[in-house]
Amino acid sequence: MANVKPRTLAGFMELLPAPQQQLERIMTTLRETYSLYGFTPLDTPIIEDAKILLAKGGGETEKQIYRFEKGDSDLALRFDLTVPLAKYVAMNYGQLTFPFRRYQIGKVYRGERPQRGRFREFYQADIDVIGDGKLDILNEAEIPSIIYQTFSRLGLKRFCIRVNNRKILNGFYELLGLSDKSQDVMRTVDKLDKIGAEAVREILVKEFDVAPEQADEVLRFIAIQGSNAEVLAALEGYKGRSETFDKGLEELGTVTRYLADFGVPEENFAVDLTIARGLDYYTGTVYETVMLDHPEVGSVCSGGRYDNLAEYYTNKSLPGVGISIGLTRLFFVLNDQKMLNESVPTAPAEVLVVPMSAAQQGYAISVATQLRAQGIRAQLYTEQKKFKAKIQYAAKLGIPYAMFLGESEEQEKVVSLKDLNKGEQVTVTLEEAAAQVRSYLDAVREIPSIVE
Amino acid sequence: MANVKPRTLAGFMELLPAPQQQLERIMTTLRETYSLYGFTPLDTPIIEDAKILLAKGGGETEKQIYRFEKGDSDLALRFDLTVPLAKYVAMNYGQLTFPFRRYQIGKVYRGERPQRGRFREFYQADIDVIGDGKLDILNEAEIPSIIYQTFSRLGLKRFCIRVNNRKILNGFYELLGLSDKSQDVMRTVDKLDKIGAEAVREILVKEFDVAPEQADEVLRFIAIQGSNAEVLAALEGYKGRSETFDKGLEELGTVTRYLADFGVPEENFAVDLTIARGLDYYTGTVYETVMLDHPEVGSVCSGGRYDNLAEYYTNKSLPGVGISIGLTRLFFVLNDQKMLNESVPTAPAEVLVVPMSAAQQGYAISVATQLRAQGIRAQLYTEQKKFKAKIQYAAKLGIPYAMFLGESEEQEKVVSLKDLNKGEQVTVTLEEAAAQVRSYLDAVREIPSIVE
Repeated sequence: MANVKPRTLAGFMELLPAPQQQLERIMTTLRETYSLYGFTPLDTPIIEDAKILLAKGGGETEKQIYRFEKGDSDLALRFDLTVPLAKYVAMNYGQLTFPFRRYQIGKVYRGERPQRGRFREFYQADIDVIGDGKLDILNEAEIPSIIYQTFSRLGLKRFCIRVNNRKILNGFYELLGLSDKSQDVMRTVDKLDKIGAEAVREILVKEFDVAPEQADEVLRFIAIQGSNAEVLAALEGYKGRSETFDKGLEELGTVTRYLADFGVPEENFAVDLTIARGLDYYTGTVYETVMLDHPEVGSVCSGGRYDNLAEYYTNKSLPGVGISIGLTRLFFVLNDQKMLNESVPTAPAEVLVVPMSAAQQGYAISVATQLRAQGIRAQLYTEQKKFKAKIQYAAKLGIPYAMFLGESEEQEKVVSLKDLNKGEQVTVTLEEAAAQVRSYLDAVREIPSIVE
Repeated sequence: MANVKPRTLAGFMELLPAPQQQLERIMTTLRETYSLYGFTPLDTPIIEDAKILLAKGGGETEKQIYRFEKGDSDLALRFDLTVPLAKYVAMNYGQLTFPFRRYQIGKVYRGERPQRGRFREFYQADIDVIGDGKLDILNEAEIPSIIYQTFSRLGLKRFCIRVNNRKILNGFYELLGLSDKSQDVMRTVDKLDKIGAEAVREILVKEFDVAPEQADEVLRFIAIQGSNAEVLAALEGYKGRSETFDKGLEELGTVTRYLADFGVPEENFAVDLTIARGLDYYTGTVYETVMLDHPEVGSVCSGGRYDNLAEYYTNKSLPGVGISIGLTRLFFVLNDQKMLNESVPTAPAEVLVVPMSAAQQGYAISVATQLRAQGIRAQLYTEQKKFKAKIQYAAKLGIPYAMFLGESEEQEKVVSLKDLNKGEQVTVTLEEAAAQVRSYLDAVREIPSIVE
């Protein structure tokens, strides 16, 4: 007897079949796009030794972590895919070939306070390129192309990949003599959009003891805007005063220069000096991606260049560059904004094969088997229901075709195929019916997951 | 500084890139095959409320479960995909369309004592068809077809789907008047392969107080062998003495009758009266699948018909039929038995695009971008290494083609394509090169994952 009320925990996304199909389609696009760039799939455990997972220690993350004991073991659920990658690369260093390019799409866990649009279990979709000792700048230049392809293939058009270089920021603060305050200054500058330039200036001067003329310099610097060429030209004016800055400018120039060869349109890319990415971790190019019509969502794909992937596990130098998409949150936002394309097929099959009576079951089975052999998803429907209920079953699930098989169809070795969207029915050979379904499949194959 | 030695927990499978590609290929085959039969993908949380997950309670499972608290919540990691399905169907009953057909491939967790070939985190790949109140027997008849297609598409030939019906067993014990001892008798009979008929007879008589002539009847019954037609004919002899038996025999007849229409060869299917599947849960057809050359592995795909999927969560009657593949263990066994096909491509790309100097980087990027647009996985290689090191990089990863782009290639708008397996190199247009790579892709697409 039922004694427990079934429920799913708050903060855990569990989808009905139709939206699940939409999510699967998005994941397939991510896998395919990442693969086109030579990334190999990895799959690491969800549970790790807590001491290894938390080797870096401290911070907000540690409070949110799911950590527990089983027997003598101190265990934790992964909270991102980067730490497990660092462990994997350090552990398998001798067996990997560098540069090592991997993608991983997997669930991670953070015990945040549940609130709308925040999840405790969520998918991340990451790519990283790891070098052994060094890694060519071209890898950083390729990332915007991957981001562009990924979102374009999903159907998104109104987005911008914002790029900066940590060496430019660090070099700029160095040439102002503000290196030791650069963290505070960057955090303050990050609030520019919210509080405005005047308030930023005041905090810099009053709270962090930045000289007023230096504060003005900072504000002038982050106010540099325009086309990529204009921003780069403006940055030229700071050259020759900091090696770090000059190196950063050179790198940013390289990343920008190859955009056209990589097929990234200018309108989807912007050099943006306000992008810093909080983490100390990043040391070169940094990326954020925003949906132009939904700036409130924040970055949907971020990352950057780092110098030491696995410093807690190995003394080997493992520089890399990577990006991450918070897939569960992105899916939530797309759904919320009605941006999931309703034309995407979400049915479990293309054809519902319906024998008109028990006598045609053998024929129906044989027909379904032949359809499947041709790659057509065919579901047999043999429940004892009224004809109308069978049609309603297909309609509810969005199955586009029903195939009716009665006595005459079996005798004449034909099938009656009904297009449930158009309401048209034809009696044709199985080959002709399969051809019609295949045209449908060709037509829907490229339907984008996202509409704007 | 490195201060933590990286390791992966015992009992957790974490693969190097090449075997991971092999596993991915197998998972893709499972997803595709399940989809052909009209199953829709589901994805449920790995963490559930412990009270819900353990509603059934008791047993070995509960000891093995990963259970822990976070804040006030009593949480547990799922130990199979059936209980979460039951929760899902009960919870979403009003929004689902029945029969509801879903597949799920996901990780489950059991804190077993780690030993060779046993995993604490492992993939299960399940399908289930759930009816609302009732479910046609044809759904049970279709399952062997799905098992057959799945393993055939993977490349396995020497396997047998063994099928029985719990109603036949229950009915048989009923007609012998042994219903109340049937659990003990079945458990003893299960040992037949290991201890032999004489020992089974002795246990039945001495331990369970079965009359000697009844024990002989039991042994005669489970000794029934032969072709499916012969076994069914032998069972006819017991008809008319138990309604349950007769119903079971009728169901088994239906399941067997449609095999040919479903395209399942006789040699991959056997009615086997010794199959019982321990769980009380099953009430009709039961399935096991064995690799004929590796009987020691046991069943690689099992399941059956049940009457109440979600009795702990709802009073609705939800009968169903399902099967499960223990994918991680299967993969371990295939690898162990050297049955993973080494011809399966495991490289991260088809083409390594190599600019001969920095001057050709723009051309190389443009060439790689065009290859990707045609669905060819192309990796740019721009690290500053000697030519030989670049070739070795491709060879180590098993990348089949290298594309060299020097000054003359760029000027003449051609590419030098080297087939690294054959050692042949041609200088051709990009279109011709892409066509050659596509022929390779066509040739390897159907390579089976498994060889015998």
